[in-house]
Amino acid sequence: MKPSIPKGTRDFGPIEVKKREYIINIIKDSFEKFGFQPIETPVMENLSTLTGKYGDEGEQLLYRVLNQGQKLKKANIQAFEAGNLPHFAASVAEKGLRYDLTIPFARYVVMNRGTLTFPFKRYQIQPVWRGDRPQKGRYREFYQCDADVIGTTSLLNEAELVQIYDNAFKKFGFEVSIKLNNRKILAGIAETIGMSDKLTMLTVAIDKLDKVGIEGVEAELVRKGIGTEALESLKKVLETTGSNSEKIDFLVDYLKDSSVGTKGVEELKTLFNFLSIIKLHNKIELDITLARGLNYYTGTILEVKTDAVKMGSLGGGGRYDDLTGTFGLKNMSGVGISFGLDRIYDVLNELDLFNDINMNSTKVLFINFGGEYETAAFKTLQHFRKEGIAAEIYPESAKMKKQMKYANAKNIPFVVFIGEEELKNGTLTMKNMATGKQMLGNLSTVANLLWHLEYKKK
Amino acid sequence: MKPSIPKGTRDFGPIEVKKREYIINIIKDSFEKFGFQPIETPVMENLSTLTGKYGDEGEQLLYRVLNQGQKLKKANIQAFEAGNLPHFAASVAEKGLRYDLTIPFARYVVMNRGTLTFPFKRYQIQPVWRGDRPQKGRYREFYQCDADVIGTTSLLNEAELVQIYDNAFKKFGFEVSIKLNNRKILAGIAETIGMSDKLTMLTVAIDKLDKVGIEGVEAELVRKGIGTEALESLKKVLETTGSNSEKIDFLVDYLKDSSVGTKGVEELKTLFNFLSIIKLHNKIELDITLARGLNYYTGTILEVKTDAVKMGSLGGGGRYDDLTGTFGLKNMSGVGISFGLDRIYDVLNELDLFNDINMNSTKVLFINFGGEYETAAFKTLQHFRKEGIAAEIYPESAKMKKQMKYANAKNIPFVVFIGEEELKNGTLTMKNMATGKQMLGNLSTVANLLWHLEYKKK
Repeated sequence: MKPSIPKGTRDFGPIEVKKREYIINIIKDSFEKFGFQPIETPVMENLSTLTGKYGDEGEQLLYRVLNQGQKLKKANIQAFEAGNLPHFAASVAEKGLRYDLTIPFARYVVMNRGTLTFPFKRYQIQPVWRGDRPQKGRYREFYQCDADVIGTTSLLNEAELVQIYDNAFKKFGFEVSIKLNNRKILAGIAETIGMSDKLTMLTVAIDKLDKVGIEGVEAELVRKGIGTEALESLKKVLETTGSNSEKIDFLVDYLKDSSVGTKGVEELKTLFNFLSIIKLHNKIELDITLARGLNYYTGTILEVKTDAVKMGSLGGGGRYDDLTGTFGLKNMSGVGISFGLDRIYDVLNELDLFNDINMNSTKVLFINFGGEYETAAFKTLQHFRKEGIAAEIYPESAKMKKQMKYANAKNIPFVVFIGEEELKNGTLTMKNMATGKQMLGNLSTVANLLWHLEYKKK
Repeated sequence: MKPSIPKGTRDFGPIEVKKREYIINIIKDSFEKFGFQPIETPVMENLSTLTGKYGDEGEQLLYRVLNQGQKLKKANIQAFEAGNLPHFAASVAEKGLRYDLTIPFARYVVMNRGTLTFPFKRYQIQPVWRGDRPQKGRYREFYQCDADVIGTTSLLNEAELVQIYDNAFKKFGFEVSIKLNNRKILAGIAETIGMSDKLTMLTVAIDKLDKVGIEGVEAELVRKGIGTEALESLKKVLETTGSNSEKIDFLVDYLKDSSVGTKGVEELKTLFNFLSIIKLHNKIELDITLARGLNYYTGTILEVKTDAVKMGSLGGGGRYDDLTGTFGLKNMSGVGISFGLDRIYDVLNELDLFNDINMNSTKVLFINFGGEYETAAFKTLQHFRKEGIAAEIYPESAKMKKQMKYANAKNIPFVVFIGEEELKNGTLTMKNMATGKQMLGNLSTVANLLWHLEYKKK
């Protein structure tokens, strides 16, 4: 039997784990510096929590966990025979795998509303599961890294989330642009061109601008029956150029007859005012064409892109007025952002920016010659460890070549030999694997040198 | 609808997450100091990887993931109607949730054997799922923290694993005893008392000694038909007292006619020789009654217990001769240990040893008085952040009482006010939440003081 793992899932080896931890630590640190606190929710949620939250498509991608033991007896065979697979599935599964971090967060807030202090700022970095068709960069099991504030409508929160992005990507070491828009602007545009009733269709079409260009969007809208006048007006606003404040000036005028649109412009102004106070490293851009797909945002929306390599968005988020209403807690406005771990990983790899990984790994390997040499090496090793130097002994008196291969494979920078001569004289020979140079010394000179070379330098 | 989470699963709030991270970091650090490297495997594994590995009981506790979409059409309704639920389950599920970390590790080693360098020392800290009946301290979703070496039979590995336990529990700050035994000793005892063919029954009975006492074990063995002579001989060895070396001396003699038993004593001697070289903080005890249940160990077994509080074992492990044989790679001996995260958490809580948690959280809250005061506070906040001080502004100009309650709930040690007077004079008022004392100063005196109080002290 040849073992394998499910399509769309991955094993991570030591270097991958360390690189992922490097990214996660930068994200965590940015979240914490801004007062966000971690929570963790279970991988398994009740299906009653998950279903009805992610649209028809999401529902199909949900992973359900089969009931165990006698509970399976409740399988709805009639539904199966009638070809109603969703009903059949519902009869054999009560639990499912987490599909995102937002719904579990809303559930957590509602369950703990008695003890939480609002506004509540939480972050959460955990895997989620979606039965999507696997393809390059899209997995069935992948991490989300989210931060949300709930229980406040203040746009200071949006400003801080922009600052978190700015902070983190500065640490990652490559430039991004943080694009901002507001769903109320999109609603105002729809109203202004007389298509308020077709807002979703409009949003979906505009969302494809990146992929299909303005002509593609135009073609789709014409197919959907947009009028000539509406289309001309829409093109005018989508093609607006200039600085952020020029765009805002344009919108003030363009949306003056739409109350929701005017509200959106006001929110953007407030947000840009706050942002003008902060010294930001990356570019902030008002992007009137930013739509953020089918997510249920109602206010600010934001997205992170880079020109450094060809890659989709590296993060995104927005505000929704009613995060917990589905669980019976009304009027809880929330705003949040998410980092795309896998894509950031790919960018850092491509730009070779992973040069600071703390592998925290073995600094010295003691070669094992067996018998009394083994005992002497093991004894000496203890002194190194006591000094805080990560050290190993090869566990068997294998051939030298094999032991050296081990040191190379693990990138261990130094090996120590205690052979006949050294045992007699109470000395050690240390070899620098990078330079090939050897030195002979006693315990303390060698340990001191190693400490100096591998730890003090940091 | 009142939301809930599945029985046997848990949400972790901010403090719990931080306390768990504290434990995990000590364990990780100990593993890494000894040359172990991290890997991560998917939560979902193919059922072909998982089934047939955990015995009949384990098989029932496995969580299966329901097939999606059209694949569900393959449901074996005949099996269902014949009452064959396992066959029915197998027809609607191809994947399952990770049940432990050992089988995925073995699978990983076999899949990557071409690129791994052996001996391979890996650690893995991830959740696993078992559909057990939930009870105090037993969950359906819980973390395992494992370290294993594969591809070497040297007992140096066992000595190092003991040292890892010793190291980690020293850092946790409470005393444990590390109990050692060897499965070959148990096999030798069975041979010596003429019950080689009943080794499993004997192991299971002895394993209960902790819970039912020697009389309980005796009663069970009598029920299972043990002879008087065998029972007397067995009691003699189980009741052996004295130092580790006295016990070894006894075993040398007691097991002299059993070749497997003699091999076991030799291994113990070698291990205790290695351990005598290491300066250990905790007690090491040869425990002839240690059996480690139904696990497929073949050599050394070990377990960690504490007398500090009433609690089951805090960790355990052992050697098995053939870790990867089930996946077609023969003769790979492995030895490993595991830390019991949830129990260690409970002990540290009970002994109040969590005093060093780095909440890395907000050090100062800026009170929000709205309007120009809000702008001034937000501006000043940026300077604090630039100095590396974790700071927040309350996002709305809420009532003072509400803002102070927020600071208290988040344990924020200082709040800063910028009111009319301060705005006019370019000063800040900082209040120490613990002492109630206030000070007035300019930006740099206040930030310096805060830095001194909250960061320099570490």
